Amino acid sequence: MVDLVTETDKACEDLIFNYLKQQHPSHKFIGEETTAACGITELTDEPTWIVDPLDGTTNFVHGFPFVCISIGLTVGKVPTVGVVYNPIMDELFTGVHGKGAFLNGKPIKVSSQSELVKSLLATEAGTKRDKSTVDATTNRINSLLFKVRSLRMTGSCALNLCGIACGRIDLFYETGYGGPWDVAGGAVIVKEAGGIVYDPSGKDFDITSQRVAASNLLLKEAFVEVLQQSE
Amino acid sequence: MVDLVTETDKACEDLIFNYLKQQHPSHKFIGEETTAACGITELTDEPTWIVDPLDGTTNFVHGFPFVCISIGLTVGKVPTVGVVYNPIMDELFTGVHGKGAFLNGKPIKVSSQSELVKSLLATEAGTKRDKSTVDATTNRINSLLFKVRSLRMTGSCALNLCGIACGRIDLFYETGYGGPWDVAGGAVIVKEAGGIVYDPSGKDFDITSQRVAASNLLLKEAFVEVLQQSE
Repeated sequence: MVDLVTETDKACEDLIFNYLKQQHPSHKFIGEETTAACGITELTDEPTWIVDPLDGTTNFVHGFPFVCISIGLTVGKVPTVGVVYNPIMDELFTGVHGKGAFLNGKPIKVSSQSELVKSLLATEAGTKRDKSTVDATTNRINSLLFKVRSLRMTGSCALNLCGIACGRIDLFYETGYGGPWDVAGGAVIVKEAGGIVYDPSGKDFDITSQRVAASNLLLKEAFVEVLQQSE
Repeated sequence: MVDLVTETDKACEDLIFNYLKQQHPSHKFIGEETTAACGITELTDEPTWIVDPLDGTTNFVHGFPFVCISIGLTVGKVPTVGVVYNPIMDELFTGVHGKGAFLNGKPIKVSSQSELVKSLLATEAGTKRDKSTVDATTNRINSLLFKVRSLRMTGSCALNLCGIACGRIDLFYETGYGGPWDVAGGAVIVKEAGGIVYDPSGKDFDITSQRVAASNLLLKEAFVEVLQQSE
């Protein structure tokens, strides 16, 4: 089953890359499946399409409805265009730098929540199962549960970012996810929806770091404080 | 906002009760909102409709798409009819004792997974935030993460049961949820989809106990073992 999914993933990535290469022959490309097969392609300042053909692979195998295709374009390493599509729920999230964010063509914005205690938090259990990683994950969840209203885990990093963008969730963080393809599309969509994407330490977001947090502006300071306390 | 939701909840519960009372004047009724307002109605052997007009209240407030109406009928305390409807995703799960389980009219069945390590687990962070409850919750999650593929938290107990019924998730447990209205509908649907609902200790399911586990038959023994180890 996993092999079948991987083959389909690769075929989808090739399809997306081939189309985009026809349109933009001079652009660079980074994809999850190509990286898995051929190693890391360094992100440069060149216009670069960063693609995850299937975010939420475990969900896909199980039919759990949080599955998406994520496409992002960085220019000067800055996420500039984002497209995230969940075919099961038929939800298309889009964002272009300076042009706003949309869900199926309608403008979206982040929540207006200003209190952690009323906030809905999303994070993920990740895929690493060594004791120190799992302990760090659950210790952090333990600390955060005392601060927020509740916790959701969907299994898709890109859709968690889109959840922030449309106000379905108020807070999201994840560390140790797969790579820039999980966040390149969603990061633009969050920003264009009036939100902010940052490192869980509060520092600037680095798309190559496998560390992300997102929220509206009102919650950032308090969220970073509890994330730091929970480390 | 919470008051508005509570008022709407109560109005929906009254609407459902009034309709069912017209059809079945001799039956008993238990509802989340009526219980909150008037105290506990004891579950008897009489045919009893058990209703949650809105499971996933936090999700509803946030627009997170796991929201449902749950209706169950018990006869001799045994769940006999279950109807769970998610209006956001337009998914209607139904089950009648001896007649099968359906999603939007199509037969559903539990997953055929037999290995914990390949299983997708659902549970919830619950609503209690005292230290001993939160510690128990996250300690259990910590133990289980070493045994299963991954973890999902949707915020709806009834929809987690329906997720088991249609094979989107393989394992579900929750303790300390609101009451029988969270499980009365879903329990029938799981059983009619070929699954099993039980106490997390492995003992028989008691609809009034606020303790539930569900899976297919193949996973039950191994799941109970790791649940016992994680207590």
